[in-house]
Amino acid sequence: MIDGAVRSEAEFPALQHLLGLEGLTRGEISSILDLSTRMKEIGERPLKKVPSLRGKTVCTLFVEASTRTRTSFEVAAKRLSADTMSLTASASSLTKGETLLDTAKNLEAMGPDIIILRHSAAGAPHFLARHVRAAVVNAGDGRHEHPTQGLLDLFTIRERLGRLEGLEVAIVGDVANSRVARSNIFALRTMGAKVRLSGPATMMPPGLEALGVTPCRRIEEAIDGADVVMMLRIQKERMGSDLFPSDREYFRCFGLTRERLKRARPHVLVMHPGPINRGVEITPDVADGPESVILEQVTNGVAVRMAVLYVLAHRQGRAS
Amino acid sequence: MIDGAVRSEAEFPALQHLLGLEGLTRGEISSILDLSTRMKEIGERPLKKVPSLRGKTVCTLFVEASTRTRTSFEVAAKRLSADTMSLTASASSLTKGETLLDTAKNLEAMGPDIIILRHSAAGAPHFLARHVRAAVVNAGDGRHEHPTQGLLDLFTIRERLGRLEGLEVAIVGDVANSRVARSNIFALRTMGAKVRLSGPATMMPPGLEALGVTPCRRIEEAIDGADVVMMLRIQKERMGSDLFPSDREYFRCFGLTRERLKRARPHVLVMHPGPINRGVEITPDVADGPESVILEQVTNGVAVRMAVLYVLAHRQGRAS
Amino acid sequence: MIDGAVRSEAEFPALQHLLGLEGLTRGEISSILDLSTRMKEIGERPLKKVPSLRGKTVCTLFVEASTRTRTSFEVAAKRLSADTMSLTASASSLTKGETLLDTAKNLEAMGPDIIILRHSAAGAPHFLARHVRAAVVNAGDGRHEHPTQGLLDLFTIRERLGRLEGLEVAIVGDVANSRVARSNIFALRTMGAKVRLSGPATMMPPGLEALGVTPCRRIEEAIDGADVVMMLRIQKERMGSDLFPSDREYFRCFGLTRERLKRARPHVLVMHPGPINRGVEITPDVADGPESVILEQVTNGVAVRMAVLYVLAHRQGRAS
Repeated sequence: MIDGAVRSEAEFPALQHLLGLEGLTRGEISSILDLSTRMKEIGERPLKKVPSLRGKTVCTLFVEASTRTRTSFEVAAKRLSADTMSLTASASSLTKGETLLDTAKNLEAMGPDIIILRHSAAGAPHFLARHVRAAVVNAGDGRHEHPTQGLLDLFTIRERLGRLEGLEVAIVGDVANSRVARSNIFALRTMGAKVRLSGPATMMPPGLEALGVTPCRRIEEAIDGADVVMMLRIQKERMGSDLFPSDREYFRCFGLTRERLKRARPHVLVMHPGPINRGVEITPDVADGPESVILEQVTNGVAVRMAVLYVLAHRQGRAS
Repeated sequence: MIDGAVRSEAEFPALQHLLGLEGLTRGEISSILDLSTRMKEIGERPLKKVPSLRGKTVCTLFVEASTRTRTSFEVAAKRLSADTMSLTASASSLTKGETLLDTAKNLEAMGPDIIILRHSAAGAPHFLARHVRAAVVNAGDGRHEHPTQGLLDLFTIRERLGRLEGLEVAIVGDVANSRVARSNIFALRTMGAKVRLSGPATMMPPGLEALGVTPCRRIEEAIDGADVVMMLRIQKERMGSDLFPSDREYFRCFGLTRERLKRARPHVLVMHPGPINRGVEITPDVADGPESVILEQVTNGVAVRMAVLYVLAHRQGRAS
Repeated sequence: MIDGAVRSEAEFPALQHLLGLEGLTRGEISSILDLSTRMKEIGERPLKKVPSLRGKTVCTLFVEASTRTRTSFEVAAKRLSADTMSLTASASSLTKGETLLDTAKNLEAMGPDIIILRHSAAGAPHFLARHVRAAVVNAGDGRHEHPTQGLLDLFTIRERLGRLEGLEVAIVGDVANSRVARSNIFALRTMGAKVRLSGPATMMPPGLEALGVTPCRRIEEAIDGADVVMMLRIQKERMGSDLFPSDREYFRCFGLTRERLKRARPHVLVMHPGPINRGVEITPDVADGPESVILEQVTNGVAVRMAVLYVLAHRQGRAS
């Protein structure tokens, strides 16, 4: 039983939804990471299943396609014995807030306990959370946040390096458009890590200093002495436009090579949210090298999502 | 356990399939509605799951798309612990009866206990039922019937108003093309309700009097003193053609407004099978108003479908 | 419990993957067929479910579409109480080996116990098996093998005729492009059956004699005295090209008619992997006639796939 394996309910954060990592306290983040450790142990057993969410219904509503993230959530839900429903919708049919509301209200009427929403519009999960009784998990909303990605990144760092406090984390790439970067920045700062950002000038948002992070013009500056180098995914379809350089130009300026990685600490972790564009953001030898924890991030994603689903299913004394 | 919570098997209707509501007796309909009440209670528990259909396989075969109806059936099946399979097929690949038969025979060979079929051709579920051993549920066949929609509508009315006998029910819209209207008409008449129909002349089928219903030229006549106003969904893609007026014209003549609704009884229920075209069939303030039970219909749909699956899984002493 | 119903683990073949039937020993094939018999019994119970693979995750990764085969595997997995995940991918996104590897590595990181791969490239499952810890089942790879189809065909023959040794099996059609034919040839030869092949000259691969099979120019020669006539599916989209005759021409030369079937033994079995092109490969009266075991093949497919999943889940003492 997970209930025996994990800590008592009283110690969990009193989350009603998981909409973003901005505003979560250090204690709340630590609790989820601690619970994720227990969840990861379940995933290493021969029988990777506990009855914790039996009789609960977890619904994924992905208005923006992502097989990987959806599958990760579904595996997490099934390991907890929840029933899963998977709804997809074309963005076009849900562009109006009213229609998202109608969809959500109808979904709600079927009684799901947790709704996991991915949507191209920033704020869509917050809108949903105001209108449904179910717990809402943001699985990525526009350029805003992707909180479970941020949590799995923190979990991976903490598991490998033993702490988050005081670490130097370099985030490199299309920062301005990255919800992964935003979620990581909020949570890393809360946990006491230092964050440096680097990317093409057109991909760096204004006002970074206000977030407590350090912009670096060159990738080398960001990597110098870093404990973690987190590469962001480039949307290849944007390449060659006015704001984006070509593949080759991007790689030349901001690609992670073994040579550049030498500037980091010996124990450096190389991270990437996937899927990788090999030879654009990162060379294959670094992506597959000893510093890379990219596949561990995927494994940890299931554990962290189990923890999030567990916490939300047990909110308000509504749990089994 | 549902088996303890519901009535004994002997009291259930001896249905082999649910192909339509035409021909069901008052006793059979009442039994399903009674069982639905027990099923709805399960959906209100923290653990919304009973083992009644454990080891049974429920297969949805949707040749015509409908995420909402399919999801409702799947949620119902999972709450009863059935395994679910979901098959979709393009209408084009199944236009010939022979090919539907081949598909069905192959599906049958995998041993499903219940097949839920939606098909654009009236009579397709009846054809299927003659050729497979599995129980068949009609989830909508062309312009013919949509029996679980009819049952959930009756359930919603009975739950809210306490009875069906003697009620005045107005059905408004594209009656000629509506399988929802047909299933409701058959069942409401069987249960002793009175039915009035209203819609554009081109959307009213001939021979309505033979069904024991009252056609009304104007929506106001249909609503006058009604206990229930059931709005039908308009296929917007048909709008503007020879048979259909424009959106605006339709709304002007047959849209449900608060002003028009005043003609009904004070306790009137406003119903719609969804999804709503706001501002065409119904104004937003009415759709979201106190008379509206539109979202309750969705909730009740799961309960009614649980009841139907339960009855069919237990036919012929084949149950657990 | 299946574990009580079937034989002890020590008697199962020590398969790590099921990539093809080429190279399997007679003992290994017999063991899987014996286990399939027990699995078929489970499918005939009112409660068609055993807990053998509870807590195991079975993932289907179909890069080439096949609803039928995928559904058969999913039903098999669910009858054993495994959790199932279904991933589809467009062939275009997985044309490069590197990308299939990235997909597989990411999938692997979520911890599936068994990956079932269908891919248009021969050898893709073997490539996958070298790079993941999960057991891999080949659900069809290009023109190479389709081992579970071969096993279900052998199971069907053995169940009906009591043996495989010494039987005369005619395989008719597009042999050169058929992975079904290849898997059957390997396994039938291993089990001591004699195989005759017939088809248009452009559809007969060179070097057949080396496989120990007998090519026949005319279908009549192949059928003469046969115990089994196995018709292959014709890809209708290839018809009329340089290598393929027209539908009518194909049927005239190689279609299975009642007249032609008279040349076979009285107890002959007519088989087809489905879906059938009626009137091209086979006449409807033969497809639906007393000799046809085409739907039994579908039923047996679930049983054989249960056996394969069971064996692979219990490899290396990793089982429950």
